Amino acid sequence: MPGVDAADEFETIERLFRPLAHPEWARGLIDDVAALPSRPGYDLILTKDAMVEGVHFLPDDPLDTVARKLLRVNLSDLAAKGAEPFGYLLACFWPVESGWLEREAFAAGLAEDQAKFGVHLLGGDTVVTPGPASFSLTALGWAPKGRTVARSGAQPGDLIVVTGMIGEGFLGLKAARGEVGLEDERVAALIAHYRTPEPRTDFALAVREHAAAALDVSDGLIADMGHMARASGVGIVIDLEKLPLSRAATAWLETRVDPPAALTDLATGGDDYEIVMAVPPGVFDSLKREADARHLRLTVLGEATGGDGVTVRYGGEIIPVTRTGWRHG
Amino acid sequence: MPGVDAADEFETIERLFRPLAHPEWARGLIDDVAALPSRPGYDLILTKDAMVEGVHFLPDDPLDTVARKLLRVNLSDLAAKGAEPFGYLLACFWPVESGWLEREAFAAGLAEDQAKFGVHLLGGDTVVTPGPASFSLTALGWAPKGRTVARSGAQPGDLIVVTGMIGEGFLGLKAARGEVGLEDERVAALIAHYRTPEPRTDFALAVREHAAAALDVSDGLIADMGHMARASGVGIVIDLEKLPLSRAATAWLETRVDPPAALTDLATGGDDYEIVMAVPPGVFDSLKREADARHLRLTVLGEATGGDGVTVRYGGEIIPVTRTGWRHG
Repeated sequence: MPGVDAADEFETIERLFRPLAHPEWARGLIDDVAALPSRPGYDLILTKDAMVEGVHFLPDDPLDTVARKLLRVNLSDLAAKGAEPFGYLLACFWPVESGWLEREAFAAGLAEDQAKFGVHLLGGDTVVTPGPASFSLTALGWAPKGRTVARSGAQPGDLIVVTGMIGEGFLGLKAARGEVGLEDERVAALIAHYRTPEPRTDFALAVREHAAAALDVSDGLIADMGHMARASGVGIVIDLEKLPLSRAATAWLETRVDPPAALTDLATGGDDYEIVMAVPPGVFDSLKREADARHLRLTVLGEATGGDGVTVRYGGEIIPVTRTGWRHG
Repeated sequence: MPGVDAADEFETIERLFRPLAHPEWARGLIDDVAALPSRPGYDLILTKDAMVEGVHFLPDDPLDTVARKLLRVNLSDLAAKGAEPFGYLLACFWPVESGWLEREAFAAGLAEDQAKFGVHLLGGDTVVTPGPASFSLTALGWAPKGRTVARSGAQPGDLIVVTGMIGEGFLGLKAARGEVGLEDERVAALIAHYRTPEPRTDFALAVREHAAAALDVSDGLIADMGHMARASGVGIVIDLEKLPLSRAATAWLETRVDPPAALTDLATGGDDYEIVMAVPPGVFDSLKREADARHLRLTVLGEATGGDGVTVRYGGEIIPVTRTGWRHG
């Protein structure tokens, strides 16, 4: 049914998206396709995530941060696989009632993060929907041939290591909903993390060089470790008290009456966009040096074992995890 | 906000989409990314189209045909650029109230057309939306390095040639809405074309070898010729009475009191997914032989000229085209 929204969509592409286009491969966004040259010796890595207003972001999240988050959650997937990003394709579903302000904000957010992460728009589609604002992004990156890091590959004895901090996604959403009673500054930091998580793009090479298995923490730390355990055919044991927490999360934890339950919330909430890895003990020091050089926190949570599934301990005792947000375990 | 729909979405991927996955490059759909080997000597061609229930398809269109149409409109873009398809990534936005029946039908449609067109699922995302069913697909193909056919490239004197028939998209939509008073058999044929247009995948190589410029007819024949004229810096003159029509379209035309207006409807309705090309006169016979070998209709509509824009004639007289569905021209 072309033509329904043709006018606005043509102008959206011409005025807002063409400035974001890859100078060569996007063919000016006027040729229906992008054309990428072959890069011998490298695999092309692709990932695709979708976001819906009211489901994956809040109706009052600014659209520039929605655009940045959409790009970042995809870049996070690439980083966890050891791939360097270079471009993306984008589908926008604009609500009937949305106008230029929303589109301009969205494009401005993309422009900001394109520059930050060194990627360009390659193509896509923009349509109008009677439903909520929705977006889908396909991100592309390069990895040396055969060097993409998988979820499988963890061996018993490997250390389970995570970048950055865990629970910011869970607390950030609560903060954005006004459900966290902390100082304004900490609430603002949590909301900022929720809206624009930090993909570990500059750690991708280190992950590729050192990790036996890796993925990004999107479903929730425990769920994502479950994915790794299952794909690798190992068990994973972690200690909740080792969870790396921000100052805001530490302050929040102090307000809770049941610390292991609260830590479990942080470890199951998801949306952290950190990288969890299985790392052979012999290469951990080398990985740690890479992290230190980037001022990136790196935390050993536990280890891979024989058996299967994820075992969660607190104070040395195994605790049952009932809210995993995942099916398989 | 992962977890909201995690259960269904995991099972959708495992049960319905994993059987569609590329045996190697999709990494079992469990690794967040696809990894494609380099193909030296070839460019990777990407295109992305989105569809929304109530906008791009009708609420009572069967979901297996929605899936097939989504794949086909993307394959049509690749064919018009001279690229051979091999894979796709998919984002599904399922309405809250949708269940397994809808998802199974959608996957069955994909399975049918994957086999028909020789493509595989590479990855994607599946989420739940409070809005209408929506889908976005990124299709991938190969073309020999530097051989992707552009909208630009038409020269004055080139013949303007189109595959298949024009107006089936326009009449097909009318037929699906019960607005075409023809014999049942013809209405059924129109609806079938509307729901599952035929991408000219098997003509891609011929397009690449012979066309100076090409694109698929999605916005509407006149609008799409306008895109070509503008990108190429030429004018295009066509004669409406040369429009290739199906028997159903011919029967419909006979019921109209104003033939040029009716032909203009067919030439502006869009959704035809034929390929319109600028072809140097010296290679037309060779292109025609390629079409004949595939039992594919090929029609000369007019020619590229000096000047700019699209000039539409009927009975040798220039007629004003007021409903073009396009901005530029």
